Amino acid sequence: MVSIVAANFARFGKRDEDIFAISSESALPIVDKFRDVIDFVVVSNSYSGEFNDISGLNNLLTTHLAIENVPSMRVDNTSGSGGSAVLVAKSLVASDEAKNVLVIGAEKMTGYPTKKSTRIIASLLPPEERRGGPSLPSLAAFMTRSYIREFSPTRESIAMVAVKNHHNGALNPYAHFQADVPLEKVMASRIIADPLRIFEYCPVSDGAVSLLVTSDENSKSLGNKSVKITGTGASSGTSSITSRESLVSIDSVKNSAKKAFKSARKTPQDMDIAELHDMASILEIVESEDVGFFKKGEGWKALETGETSIDGRLPINTSGGLNSKGHPIGASGVAQTAEIYLQLTGQAGKRQAKNVSTGFSLSMAGFGNNSTSFVYEVA
Amino acid sequence: MVSIVAANFARFGKRDEDIFAISSESALPIVDKFRDVIDFVVVSNSYSGEFNDISGLNNLLTTHLAIENVPSMRVDNTSGSGGSAVLVAKSLVASDEAKNVLVIGAEKMTGYPTKKSTRIIASLLPPEERRGGPSLPSLAAFMTRSYIREFSPTRESIAMVAVKNHHNGALNPYAHFQADVPLEKVMASRIIADPLRIFEYCPVSDGAVSLLVTSDENSKSLGNKSVKITGTGASSGTSSITSRESLVSIDSVKNSAKKAFKSARKTPQDMDIAELHDMASILEIVESEDVGFFKKGEGWKALETGETSIDGRLPINTSGGLNSKGHPIGASGVAQTAEIYLQLTGQAGKRQAKNVSTGFSLSMAGFGNNSTSFVYEVA
Repeated sequence: MVSIVAANFARFGKRDEDIFAISSESALPIVDKFRDVIDFVVVSNSYSGEFNDISGLNNLLTTHLAIENVPSMRVDNTSGSGGSAVLVAKSLVASDEAKNVLVIGAEKMTGYPTKKSTRIIASLLPPEERRGGPSLPSLAAFMTRSYIREFSPTRESIAMVAVKNHHNGALNPYAHFQADVPLEKVMASRIIADPLRIFEYCPVSDGAVSLLVTSDENSKSLGNKSVKITGTGASSGTSSITSRESLVSIDSVKNSAKKAFKSARKTPQDMDIAELHDMASILEIVESEDVGFFKKGEGWKALETGETSIDGRLPINTSGGLNSKGHPIGASGVAQTAEIYLQLTGQAGKRQAKNVSTGFSLSMAGFGNNSTSFVYEVA
Repeated sequence: MVSIVAANFARFGKRDEDIFAISSESALPIVDKFRDVIDFVVVSNSYSGEFNDISGLNNLLTTHLAIENVPSMRVDNTSGSGGSAVLVAKSLVASDEAKNVLVIGAEKMTGYPTKKSTRIIASLLPPEERRGGPSLPSLAAFMTRSYIREFSPTRESIAMVAVKNHHNGALNPYAHFQADVPLEKVMASRIIADPLRIFEYCPVSDGAVSLLVTSDENSKSLGNKSVKITGTGASSGTSSITSRESLVSIDSVKNSAKKAFKSARKTPQDMDIAELHDMASILEIVESEDVGFFKKGEGWKALETGETSIDGRLPINTSGGLNSKGHPIGASGVAQTAEIYLQLTGQAGKRQAKNVSTGFSLSMAGFGNNSTSFVYEVA
């Protein structure tokens, strides 16, 4: 069995420092404590070439961290890179290729015109669809309109995802946005892609987060609190959005979660807490259904009842999610695992949920082109 | 134990097709035969963003190959990406995350001015060294001068790497260059970085190659000839070339080979054939020593005696190596594994070596910033 024994964030947001400094800020506390035992580094990053004019980031980082003899690689899966990187770390440990893997998720994306950032990220769409012009934000708007047509949620319940996640972000010292936003302000904010408004989208962020992944035998000797990864599931769907049968459900999310629960021998109803990929408000709702927490078409009700708030039955995105914590592409999936680790070990500070011993995270690439799900349990 | 059961090349060289077409050319024969059992795709690629304006290449490729429900990720380690990708595939299989992993190594780099390509690849150097101006070709020249000063090889023996590897490439229908080059022509060719000449460097190439990696239990039922991966070793060295103690030896190569031989319980002398990372002629010689095939300072002699020719005691780079087969960055390491597979299963055509049942490959990132070594044995 493979466990997580450490997690550390560098603050997400608009940062002046370069990607080396931000990555090191997240990794150094772990490296300082576990320098002698770290034997592999997996860097989760998508766009160091496009945004930072850097390749071989993993090797430059091990040199920068003065652990230059530790082997490393970069794992990329666009927005879902972090899930893939944690899966690789787990596989390296489980297959005895490594004993203690430092995972560093990092992206430095701010400082460019939004048009340039959007164009770079849209390079994950199929060439024929890219020419047609849809961006990821507009795909989320299509999804929202389909969801409203099909299931008649209140419009407010969708916006409540932003209210809830901004509230959580306000309690997270590493979040990009750390201020509550009332529902009225969300509903009155600028429309980005009708009907979705600016507070319902994640911002463009810099940020980094690091984890130490280890085998169970090691986890005790390392002395830190540990959380087991008891289930994993990876799945893909077509990258061609126009070829999909449904716009209110995501195949890769459904299938990856199913696999993860099966391998953990758990059900969605066994989970105490979850981190989902809320690039746009609607996605948290759709994913909470696809993963199996709620019936299809009913996920929006949890926002009205408060079931997914920090003090609810199943807190979702206590970290603030991508929506408020921010979305440094390569860091986001690693951050989800880090948040569950902090929550299950009682280290989540002001945003700590009560009585949580099982958790779930969903790391998603593109617009559901790929998903990796994890089930976690307190060791 | 994990085995390779299929390998297929798309021709390396200057290709008119895009990266999807080249990748598919290499993958389709394997996908057609094993569509129902492939359950993970690992794409080895470094520069799709920089050269092709594409991100999420792995997801676009599974969609293009009509295996869009198969999960995937991209693994990058610059020139050593292929070694990392094969290591990830092996770990996914060995840790039961997947049963049959399709590895696709691909890069499309031609069609740009050399200055642009060189600048993109130099983005793997530490920022402070990049400002100083050394490129990877000039580092190889420094290494050559140091090697000559320290070990007094004949100058011709170093150039003979290019003669041997062009000869091998002439026998390989997938090689970028398929013509013999006599020693006199190498020695009279244009100097790129004194004393190394143009025929001693790998070209800028497009290309792709695919492998199927599977567990031993599966390898029999799949029906193809199989080769076991019996040893693996990953290691790194500092990315700061000016901080290195020696310029005639590469720490990451030494350490990764040592680990691979140890895990396979074999010695370098047990190997029948090898693929090394001959980005420049001198590197094949230095690596052949660091790996343990020859004593330090004596590797050049094998070029004079013919010991590393196809009909010699230990054929090295029967594929033509990077030098003649070409060096599409993300494809190269996968191609080395593919060549050993073809050789050990007697499928190497005109370049087939005789009586080979054990093999070794070394995939190297940057200028030895990272290395992954493998030992293979006929199943």
